Amino acid sequence: MLSFESDYIEGAHQKILDALIKTNLEKLSGYGNDIYCDRAKEKIKKVIGNPNAEVYFTVGGTQTNQLVISSVLKPYEGVISAVTGHINGHEAGAIEYSGHKVLCLPQYDGKISADDLAAYIESFFGDDSHDHMVFPGMVYISHPTEYGTLYSKSELEHISNVCKKYNLPLFLDGARLGYGLMSDETDLSIKDIARLCDIFYIGGTKVGALCGEAVVFKENTAPKHFFTSIKQHGALLAKGRLLGIQFDTLFTDDLYFNISRHAIEMANLLKEVFVRKGYTFYKNSPTNQQFILLDNKTLERLKEKVLFTVWEKPDQDHTAVRFTTSWATTEKDIEELEKLL
Amino acid sequence: MLSFESDYIEGAHQKILDALIKTNLEKLSGYGNDIYCDRAKEKIKKVIGNPNAEVYFTVGGTQTNQLVISSVLKPYEGVISAVTGHINGHEAGAIEYSGHKVLCLPQYDGKISADDLAAYIESFFGDDSHDHMVFPGMVYISHPTEYGTLYSKSELEHISNVCKKYNLPLFLDGARLGYGLMSDETDLSIKDIARLCDIFYIGGTKVGALCGEAVVFKENTAPKHFFTSIKQHGALLAKGRLLGIQFDTLFTDDLYFNISRHAIEMANLLKEVFVRKGYTFYKNSPTNQQFILLDNKTLERLKEKVLFTVWEKPDQDHTAVRFTTSWATTEKDIEELEKLL
Amino acid sequence: MLSFESDYIEGAHQKILDALIKTNLEKLSGYGNDIYCDRAKEKIKKVIGNPNAEVYFTVGGTQTNQLVISSVLKPYEGVISAVTGHINGHEAGAIEYSGHKVLCLPQYDGKISADDLAAYIESFFGDDSHDHMVFPGMVYISHPTEYGTLYSKSELEHISNVCKKYNLPLFLDGARLGYGLMSDETDLSIKDIARLCDIFYIGGTKVGALCGEAVVFKENTAPKHFFTSIKQHGALLAKGRLLGIQFDTLFTDDLYFNISRHAIEMANLLKEVFVRKGYTFYKNSPTNQQFILLDNKTLERLKEKVLFTVWEKPDQDHTAVRFTTSWATTEKDIEELEKLL
Amino acid sequence: MLSFESDYIEGAHQKILDALIKTNLEKLSGYGNDIYCDRAKEKIKKVIGNPNAEVYFTVGGTQTNQLVISSVLKPYEGVISAVTGHINGHEAGAIEYSGHKVLCLPQYDGKISADDLAAYIESFFGDDSHDHMVFPGMVYISHPTEYGTLYSKSELEHISNVCKKYNLPLFLDGARLGYGLMSDETDLSIKDIARLCDIFYIGGTKVGALCGEAVVFKENTAPKHFFTSIKQHGALLAKGRLLGIQFDTLFTDDLYFNISRHAIEMANLLKEVFVRKGYTFYKNSPTNQQFILLDNKTLERLKEKVLFTVWEKPDQDHTAVRFTTSWATTEKDIEELEKLL
Repeated sequence: MLSFESDYIEGAHQKILDALIKTNLEKLSGYGNDIYCDRAKEKIKKVIGNPNAEVYFTVGGTQTNQLVISSVLKPYEGVISAVTGHINGHEAGAIEYSGHKVLCLPQYDGKISADDLAAYIESFFGDDSHDHMVFPGMVYISHPTEYGTLYSKSELEHISNVCKKYNLPLFLDGARLGYGLMSDETDLSIKDIARLCDIFYIGGTKVGALCGEAVVFKENTAPKHFFTSIKQHGALLAKGRLLGIQFDTLFTDDLYFNISRHAIEMANLLKEVFVRKGYTFYKNSPTNQQFILLDNKTLERLKEKVLFTVWEKPDQDHTAVRFTTSWATTEKDIEELEKLL
Repeated sequence: MLSFESDYIEGAHQKILDALIKTNLEKLSGYGNDIYCDRAKEKIKKVIGNPNAEVYFTVGGTQTNQLVISSVLKPYEGVISAVTGHINGHEAGAIEYSGHKVLCLPQYDGKISADDLAAYIESFFGDDSHDHMVFPGMVYISHPTEYGTLYSKSELEHISNVCKKYNLPLFLDGARLGYGLMSDETDLSIKDIARLCDIFYIGGTKVGALCGEAVVFKENTAPKHFFTSIKQHGALLAKGRLLGIQFDTLFTDDLYFNISRHAIEMANLLKEVFVRKGYTFYKNSPTNQQFILLDNKTLERLKEKVLFTVWEKPDQDHTAVRFTTSWATTEKDIEELEKLL
Repeated sequence: MLSFESDYIEGAHQKILDALIKTNLEKLSGYGNDIYCDRAKEKIKKVIGNPNAEVYFTVGGTQTNQLVISSVLKPYEGVISAVTGHINGHEAGAIEYSGHKVLCLPQYDGKISADDLAAYIESFFGDDSHDHMVFPGMVYISHPTEYGTLYSKSELEHISNVCKKYNLPLFLDGARLGYGLMSDETDLSIKDIARLCDIFYIGGTKVGALCGEAVVFKENTAPKHFFTSIKQHGALLAKGRLLGIQFDTLFTDDLYFNISRHAIEMANLLKEVFVRKGYTFYKNSPTNQQFILLDNKTLERLKEKVLFTVWEKPDQDHTAVRFTTSWATTEKDIEELEKLL
Repeated sequence: MLSFESDYIEGAHQKILDALIKTNLEKLSGYGNDIYCDRAKEKIKKVIGNPNAEVYFTVGGTQTNQLVISSVLKPYEGVISAVTGHINGHEAGAIEYSGHKVLCLPQYDGKISADDLAAYIESFFGDDSHDHMVFPGMVYISHPTEYGTLYSKSELEHISNVCKKYNLPLFLDGARLGYGLMSDETDLSIKDIARLCDIFYIGGTKVGALCGEAVVFKENTAPKHFFTSIKQHGALLAKGRLLGIQFDTLFTDDLYFNISRHAIEMANLLKEVFVRKGYTFYKNSPTNQQFILLDNKTLERLKEKVLFTVWEKPDQDHTAVRFTTSWATTEKDIEELEKLL
């Protein structure tokens, strides 16, 4: 069946498979101590414009969020997030499992505002009644957000400035970073993100890899013995090569950016189809996830013909659903969808 | 350089790569809801002789140990292990990180004894001073053990009986299970293991897969909402197909057993080489890991020619090292080693 | 200085001191294994009308909330609470420290509604996308609430029925239970509470004791090995007698109820004073905590004359403050306050 | 019945009760913000000879160990302890519950040796295979130990030097510190302990108080926001005065030392009785806990006449039992015991 369920319904980009095949019988040390991991790290440091950054590879998003957040926070600290943040709603309590509270700010199309952030942090100063509360210890955002929306450069700069002022690390979840960077509507480059965030990760799983995320810390800011923390969280691959080879490939000849751009172009086509067919958009997303509002009847009808994801139920009669494109979506997929609608 | 460093120095068996390539563009739902995961589970249930078992796929060993143990134990319980157990010494405190104590028993060539186990558990009954202590909540063994040794059927039956008597689940870490099952010196089949253990896992990472472990629970004994616990531990792959396809391949035409047998045959050749060359064995291992005792001079000499793993330092003048074969080791590798020794 | 800061600004009721003095040199076993603990438990079981209840003594409120909630929940579960619940805002993340998320419902004068509760729980059934979310595992309310308000019998019955329907334990934080039970405006007896809640505690610290809370479970519902969990949480007193003797005294000759009633009468006088003096109430509280809205100027003036607690800052120009009476408040205290206002 | 069960079988020293009664109706702020806590802290800083130390009050021993250790350690670190250390065996896994492993060293009469300690820590340097292991993050000792034994000044200096060399904080559990300090056989003063340890606590519960421990950190070494961590662990008393008043009393006119000395004198009498009656000592303890080896018949006979604690069962035919004196033991108690033996 035709599917726009997510950006992880196919395997990996062919170039990644080719690289895995080509290197398959090379004898490489485990746990990331291999030349492909080294090479991938160098390429990432180059593309983000920071030769002193520290790069680590992990397997998936929830794991990375738990690992990074719990390694950075002190036991009495929590992480600030939009109430709609992935860590707050859809990671099965992985942050709390590691002992930390998610401190929620209001969301605007999935984003937090620098003003709300400043006001929240400010309330913790000069008033010791807060000694009975969870201190904010870092700020989590995702880009794109849960609604596929993007921070503008100005918005991210404001948030970054607030974080600097109060000495809180800013952590950007880039599980779909490529699709954000290649959107028509962004003014943020990966170098901007590396400059404005203290920690971020470059999502592989949802951008052409079988699995894998690349976590980037500014120079000398990775938590001490972070390798051991990766192990302790069960996030260390014995065959670390699997991650190194994939990221080495993704950051060769701009593959990561090119396939992300492809997904955006497919999303633009998809949007046009929904516009032409008179559908209502639930959110205005400039990235590869498109949110459509369906009445119940249409929902039932479409479900039989194409796969997509039910997102939210804003009222009894309507359902917001998500159609997603990816590096693997073809124009033919879009054409078939148009026929079905 | 020639390497016997571990059984995870190569990529994946060619048939696994072939399957990944062949299925690459199929659009499959995420998180393990795909036909390859289903099919792999059915094949595993068949080979272990228990149609009602519950099978879950995870990514790696430490992760699996943490996930299973913390999902089964109550907060006031700990897990019994040999003092040399992997969870006690080499998983960076992953069990304690999840809130539980590892309760150590003496080890005999890496194994625990049923008698020690019974005596330990027995001491918790009829004496309420133990209310200030950590209750034993499950028993962890690995097969093969950290020293490559194996439980005999009789030993495993005794341990299993003790566990049954005291109603403690028996959990077997089978990260290298294949190499244990295909050893010349074992009388335990995978059906025996499935019968005698409450929970075990079939290691993929070290037996021909890129990554992946298959956790098996007896019927109706998987912890409630185990899927959510997998997510909470950061152990859930978005592209669950990666695990399903690999295990589907490993359990087609006995691939798992055949490649494990190959590793054993290579280990037998390896042993012969060391015997011929007059080396001393540190442990007598019937599986794919061979432990050799080297004096310091020989250690330095060998290090320059071949890769292996330093294991332990029993005294100032000697070092125990590990040479490992795998599904990927060739006779040529062994021949080259013999020339070097 | 005159103080209405809280209900824990004095030591203990004189009868409690007398009992401690009288029993001081009796040689009693530790950890609660003494006749005073036994006797106090029997008296509590009698007063709540449940001879089969299980009673445990702990030291303080945050400790009790953490201990009970983390002992009842499974690792993948969270606890439902009003967003203003004490566990959500003012316990320094003690619940999250134990690995669990606080799942917030809207608050109405500090209370949750049965309808919101049912809707929230209902959303977890029949839709497996919730497998990525934290399951509700118990319901936490406090009575009185953070705003000194009370559930009516009808409200509590509705909440209790929702909990029963979905098989979620209902846990009532009674840190100030006495003041709720003796309010002029309640129709809930302690027997009602014992009938409608699965777990609750009877606060001693804020109702005349030096420290101590009495946790009550319905028959056969205390978590297994709860004594060991108390120890593990650092909540076990070596001199358990300190708790037993205090609760034995509080539940002799209705002392707990009489001193709570006294506090309510003092609160009624306090209210009258504020009404007479033309102050604005921030919340309408029928218990021993009274919330007054002050403009900034009045706030500064009062701060110099009397101690109270700053509660919230609803806007730039106003501050909500709390005046609290207790078992130890005297009419003279109220008269002096009136003079100051 | 006559009892030598423990040093927490009576209430509190009369002077403590007197102080509680005298201050009972003073209106004091909560959570330790009162003059008695301040005064007690000043007196403790004076007696230990460090005006810049930081002092905090907590309720009990297990709680204090969990709180201090988990606040000082990083997530990837564990605490080194003698295998017989209280935290390893008799605190229901409180350390592991907070996420940390107890790293065991051999014990010699309950003590660790500086040489073993140095060798253990040394093994973590210059060898990155330890990245898969739990790093030692602090050293825990108790004084007196679980067997009532004492470190000599020379032993403690050696341990302290090893800790300094490797930059590991040394934490001394002084639940029974007074009885150690006043032993005939010690050459360690409280000033020595304050100088040689980074963190230690002065036990109140077992030395004349109803409850309470005083935790002492060297200047500027208390973990940041330690007050909030106390709250998070459920260790914060609303009526902090209860701790302040008790420690203020204990450190007025040397009460703490005088009553500890009394217990030692009673223990010396007790020893003489056992010697006269021809009993065998299991351990040679210079403090208030005396360990006697009984054959089974004698054990049964004594059990009917006097209360004591069963400690260990070295073999089938013998049991080691503990007789304890305290600030409250009288010469009459000893005389009665002699008659019974």
